[in-house]
Amino acid sequence: MTVSTTRLTPALRTAIIDAVGRDAVLDTAGAPYDRDASELRATPDMVVLPESVGQIQALMRLATEHRFPVIPRGGGTGLAGGCLALMGGVVLSVERMNRVRAIDTRNLVAEVDAGCITQTLRDAAAAANLFYPPDPAGMDRSTVGGNVATNAGGPACVKYGVTRDYVLGVEAVLPDGELLRAGVRTRKGVVGYDMAHLLCGSEGTLGVITGLTMKLIPLPAATVGMAVAFADMPSAMRAVAAVLGAGHLPSAIEFMDHRCLALVGEMLPFPVPGARPSLLIIELDGQRATIEPQLDAVAAICREQGATQVLPAPTDAERATIWGVRRQVSLRIHDYAGLYLSEDVAVPLVAIADLVAELPAFEERYGLEIFAFGHAGDGNIHLNVTSSSTDNRERAEEGVVALARRVVELGGTISGEHGIGEAKKHLVPLELSARSIALQKGIRGVFDPLGIMNPGKVFP
Amino acid sequence: MTVSTTRLTPALRTAIIDAVGRDAVLDTAGAPYDRDASELRATPDMVVLPESVGQIQALMRLATEHRFPVIPRGGGTGLAGGCLALMGGVVLSVERMNRVRAIDTRNLVAEVDAGCITQTLRDAAAAANLFYPPDPAGMDRSTVGGNVATNAGGPACVKYGVTRDYVLGVEAVLPDGELLRAGVRTRKGVVGYDMAHLLCGSEGTLGVITGLTMKLIPLPAATVGMAVAFADMPSAMRAVAAVLGAGHLPSAIEFMDHRCLALVGEMLPFPVPGARPSLLIIELDGQRATIEPQLDAVAAICREQGATQVLPAPTDAERATIWGVRRQVSLRIHDYAGLYLSEDVAVPLVAIADLVAELPAFEERYGLEIFAFGHAGDGNIHLNVTSSSTDNRERAEEGVVALARRVVELGGTISGEHGIGEAKKHLVPLELSARSIALQKGIRGVFDPLGIMNPGKVFP
Repeated sequence: MTVSTTRLTPALRTAIIDAVGRDAVLDTAGAPYDRDASELRATPDMVVLPESVGQIQALMRLATEHRFPVIPRGGGTGLAGGCLALMGGVVLSVERMNRVRAIDTRNLVAEVDAGCITQTLRDAAAAANLFYPPDPAGMDRSTVGGNVATNAGGPACVKYGVTRDYVLGVEAVLPDGELLRAGVRTRKGVVGYDMAHLLCGSEGTLGVITGLTMKLIPLPAATVGMAVAFADMPSAMRAVAAVLGAGHLPSAIEFMDHRCLALVGEMLPFPVPGARPSLLIIELDGQRATIEPQLDAVAAICREQGATQVLPAPTDAERATIWGVRRQVSLRIHDYAGLYLSEDVAVPLVAIADLVAELPAFEERYGLEIFAFGHAGDGNIHLNVTSSSTDNRERAEEGVVALARRVVELGGTISGEHGIGEAKKHLVPLELSARSIALQKGIRGVFDPLGIMNPGKVFP
Repeated sequence: MTVSTTRLTPALRTAIIDAVGRDAVLDTAGAPYDRDASELRATPDMVVLPESVGQIQALMRLATEHRFPVIPRGGGTGLAGGCLALMGGVVLSVERMNRVRAIDTRNLVAEVDAGCITQTLRDAAAAANLFYPPDPAGMDRSTVGGNVATNAGGPACVKYGVTRDYVLGVEAVLPDGELLRAGVRTRKGVVGYDMAHLLCGSEGTLGVITGLTMKLIPLPAATVGMAVAFADMPSAMRAVAAVLGAGHLPSAIEFMDHRCLALVGEMLPFPVPGARPSLLIIELDGQRATIEPQLDAVAAICREQGATQVLPAPTDAERATIWGVRRQVSLRIHDYAGLYLSEDVAVPLVAIADLVAELPAFEERYGLEIFAFGHAGDGNIHLNVTSSSTDNRERAEEGVVALARRVVELGGTISGEHGIGEAKKHLVPLELSARSIALQKGIRGVFDPLGIMNPGKVFP
């Protein structure tokens, strides 16, 4: 799918080059700037790679003057088409603004450029014995700015919360080029509205995030984990509830369903019995002397709830093996499927097993195979809706809408962590009232009265 | 100070009574509805105490039709005049809407009416072995709705974050009477802008919060604490940095300065040596087997940093004694001072000692005595600016402005947890740019184009 409604004139191209400098403009505007990790594609009119806030300000002043779209881009790892120039215009990649400006060990904050790779921040924090918990799947390529723009999640959310929970301050260039500093550099601050957290999750529609002040916490001394197999999904979900109910707060509780296990189960060192088995990956972090007995206690709870196998992973190497299995799931689904729609719902914890139990009915009705895995500790389920035939798109999309309706009925949300971008816009009215959407468009209008920031995204 | 610019006509009073019912309207509009915990006073035209969302919707429809101010009110424990009818109008107290709607143990969320007392939620959660961490000082009288409207803090923030970190969903009546459901009931959700967190901290200027979905976490099994005396503030602050730097994350790190100790020091079982001594209260929560040795380790770090006394408080009774000392500080300052201005700044952790070291210069220059205590773990310092003479108001207010300027220079914020309300409006431009304020007023206009929600508050 490629949509392009605006074209830059040659004069405007020249004006942009004059404003940002020749070195900041790519000669070609193709891959990777025409794509993200979704199936959407759109070739921008121009790609700008600034190295300074001043260049971004110059670009936005021109964009305001000439009303061309600007689409901010981080690592391009999004799954919803949020960084694509679907209405033409300039893709503004912050990839060259990638510094960790400071790891402030005395105040437990990090200052980073928007284009800083997430893993780079995590590593820099860890080198100072500090912890930046958010761990979205693409963190070796995603940027902190992109994570903030989409409020990215990850396995660590169950214990540590989402990216937004670590945002203290946001530096952003507004659509007219003025620099806004929102939020604080302190752990607390209640002066005016929560502008920093409003920018977080706004998917590039309110301004260009250029820098961030992120909260850090002490680095846990150690992490231990295990993989636990169950004969069916309800047993696995009862185990999750029992673990949390007993007062344990794991640093990850991931699950995969029987379809995922059919793809990667042979990587496990044990057979997984049951017609619809399920696997949990549970991790605990903290002082080793505390978490090792705690892991035993959690394993005992899992066995009480019917676990058929427990594979402890007390070392980092063993944990890496288990996560390797988890990571293979996405890759193999891609290889396996002719048609692939990546949904990312979240439901109340108690509804996970219900929803997964209903998937066969959806599969049958719409001619699909749905692979479910995700974050059992926070109800965030990645529903990988596939079909062996690429001809089945229309029914597959109907199936996605039906699934989204059911998720909202269950008290859930149509996107737990991937965001709306372009791909999920049509689902938004299933969850948000017309008034809520109108208020949000009103807020957008306050920031971007000309509608030049990432136009067409988020709102239907 | 009493400002009143609007008066309701008798016909409008009758219309309000018809809309919300006779039982929901108070005959008199005096105390406590003319005050909060600040020194400000304003008698409203009318006080409405609804028992249902429908009554609030009816009131707001009338307010929109006739353009009279409505001022939402929780427990009246605010310190900035945020719930006062300083421009006249109707005070809308949610105190009768005080139910815990549900403690959902399987999904780890609480559903509460906005008027639910904070402590009631904490108790209800604890009865289900769950934890609602926010602990603002007035939590035995404050409401969850008020806490959300002001994004209240408390000692637990250093480990557990602020009220906003526990807000999942907000139900609010918009100025025209329509009910908005913002946010989610799940642990994650990224559909559209972050409306729930925007309402949090908006101090009643965007709508009337009527219900909340709040995140709960497993209840820590035990809490242990200690009081630690230092000969001077820099030593105490070095100890705080050393404790956090060693990877400990206490559930409270409170401090008080030498002036506070002069008021309450005799309640401690040991002398506090030093010309300008300082006291820390440190608590740890978790499994008792873990936190008892951890408390010893933290005490050892404090001794290394020059602690002159360590008073362990391993039991709840002993902890209560220490907190009793802390609570006495505010009461005794009130008794002691002729003039009392409650400031609530937050600075980067490293700047706490710097700021406190500069206080004598401010005291001398403006004829003040400044008592500093607060949350050392998150940089939030309650600067209790006092003068023995009530005639010194003008210089005291100049001193506050000078202090606020210095706080912003140090990278801090003029309010860490109390909010702006009326009392701190004049300080806002010291921290926020004109553009930031204009954007926020624009957002306010999207929600409340007539300006009837808590008019005159937050923005200068």
